[in-house]
Amino acid sequence: MFGFDDKIMFQNKNNDILTVGEILIDMISTEYGDNFESSNYSKFFGGSPSNIAMNVKKLGIRSHVASAVGDDGLGSFLIDQLRNADIDTKGIQHTEYSTSMVVITKSKSSPVPIFYRGADYHLAFTPVLEEYLINSKIIHFSCWPLSMVPVRHTLEKVIEKAKENHILIGFDPNYHPMIWQKGEDGIEYVKSIIGKVDIIKPSEDDAERLFGKDTHENQIKKFLRLGAKLVIMTLGKEGAMVSNGVETVKYSTLATDVVDTTGAGDAFWSGFYTAAIKGYSIREALALGFAVSAYQLKYTGAIVDLPKLEVIKERYGL
Amino acid sequence: MFGFDDKIMFQNKNNDILTVGEILIDMISTEYGDNFESSNYSKFFGGSPSNIAMNVKKLGIRSHVASAVGDDGLGSFLIDQLRNADIDTKGIQHTEYSTSMVVITKSKSSPVPIFYRGADYHLAFTPVLEEYLINSKIIHFSCWPLSMVPVRHTLEKVIEKAKENHILIGFDPNYHPMIWQKGEDGIEYVKSIIGKVDIIKPSEDDAERLFGKDTHENQIKKFLRLGAKLVIMTLGKEGAMVSNGVETVKYSTLATDVVDTTGAGDAFWSGFYTAAIKGYSIREALALGFAVSAYQLKYTGAIVDLPKLEVIKERYGL
Repeated sequence: MFGFDDKIMFQNKNNDILTVGEILIDMISTEYGDNFESSNYSKFFGGSPSNIAMNVKKLGIRSHVASAVGDDGLGSFLIDQLRNADIDTKGIQHTEYSTSMVVITKSKSSPVPIFYRGADYHLAFTPVLEEYLINSKIIHFSCWPLSMVPVRHTLEKVIEKAKENHILIGFDPNYHPMIWQKGEDGIEYVKSIIGKVDIIKPSEDDAERLFGKDTHENQIKKFLRLGAKLVIMTLGKEGAMVSNGVETVKYSTLATDVVDTTGAGDAFWSGFYTAAIKGYSIREALALGFAVSAYQLKYTGAIVDLPKLEVIKERYGL
Repeated sequence: MFGFDDKIMFQNKNNDILTVGEILIDMISTEYGDNFESSNYSKFFGGSPSNIAMNVKKLGIRSHVASAVGDDGLGSFLIDQLRNADIDTKGIQHTEYSTSMVVITKSKSSPVPIFYRGADYHLAFTPVLEEYLINSKIIHFSCWPLSMVPVRHTLEKVIEKAKENHILIGFDPNYHPMIWQKGEDGIEYVKSIIGKVDIIKPSEDDAERLFGKDTHENQIKKFLRLGAKLVIMTLGKEGAMVSNGVETVKYSTLATDVVDTTGAGDAFWSGFYTAAIKGYSIREALALGFAVSAYQLKYTGAIVDLPKLEVIKERYGL
């Protein structure tokens, strides 16, 4: 049970957080075009696990990443970017599959990404990954590495080992049928994972994809019933609603100036984890998570030059 | 046996040539960069079967294409391009996999393409494909659709049906380990196909990848020994060497002005097939194939606005 005024107690470890999952190229059109008329694309570093690892480092804690790239130029590009961000790249596995990519053609209506998955779903459970895992206080992953085999088996081992070693597990239940293995019921699988993790952060859309339309309160109950211990449901402009099954707390958004929503969710996780590691209570860690997210929303792109957590804390008067 | 002064006899059919295999996006960097520093890419229509189908149409014969795209914006883009080129798109299958893509980062040394295969290797043997096939005089394919399962099974049926129906089979043995299914000996498989087809056009590099280094004469013998009936071995600037197992004829290149070698091989096939359909002898069809290739070499890109075959014939004094 996560009491809002409790601090999360961690064992003494030589790393704070290990993020596990996809690393990829975002290939984004430079122009808008509803019919894919746009000919020009630019490539960017992508993948939420790495974004979180980079963010928390800037905010002031230690991180490792476990992801897989191909033995190709795009993989080398991603590794160079991690090095530039001072992330240890020992956890990046090289596979014989192409570095994963998402092609996004900007559109005035809703842009539909196209997924090219290769290396990312071939992440293996290696001795390096196990060592990183055992030496971390928190592990984090999203639906990406659950969505396909064989990486799913790696994640199942990660979850098992994390539980054996009393490591906090954060899970982003960002289920989407587009990334899921063909011909399989991803929803049931994601639901089966929810009971095995400690903290989840669904958005309204995530909840609707998993359970259909319902009130926020009811959606939160469904997550709790599946075994989630702390449910952080984000509601866009309306802030968030958080429940530990006993108490439900509403948070208003701290964002006053929204330039780009890319990476806002990862920024929340980054602020929340950093605060939890630094010994803030859950109530405070949530507020700090939302503050980092609000900070991120003022800038363009998934990777923002975040200051130390304490600077953001002061900026938002927390 | 293909006598050089013989004409290929075809049955009366309502289509001339059916090309089968990959259709894809070529995502090509706008700048050169040996370390994938280039951020900017442009997307192009790609895939040799469609290029040949478009070429032969311009040169003056009828064509159909059998290929598969994803139900996504890039697939729609490819279909629009076919429509613009006046190609019937009934043979384009829609799959639940992403439209295939090749990312090419230009380099002063040798650019290494990265393959993102999805829809292309899910081409199925459908009634439409069978109808196209039975009603064509020639079918053509390269190593792409042989390189992975399940499309390979489709090709195996295509070959079987083509033989039953006495349809001429042209095969481009452009084997490369990079496109091949992991963990399988592609070379042995390609060799097993060579005896089932009528005409093949290996380049020197193709021959070397299949058989190792050897003289041109010996390489040609190896293809013949595997069962190829007409071997057209292209030698770059040195032209080509063609053998039917009895007679070997050397062709000098007709290219005087080489701007871009992209699509030169497909241009040869297009000229050769068009001439064969129009009733020229094999000797003449080869010369016309090399003339179309020389014409293509003067322009940039895989798709060139070719004139009718007769115009090229006159241009090169054939």
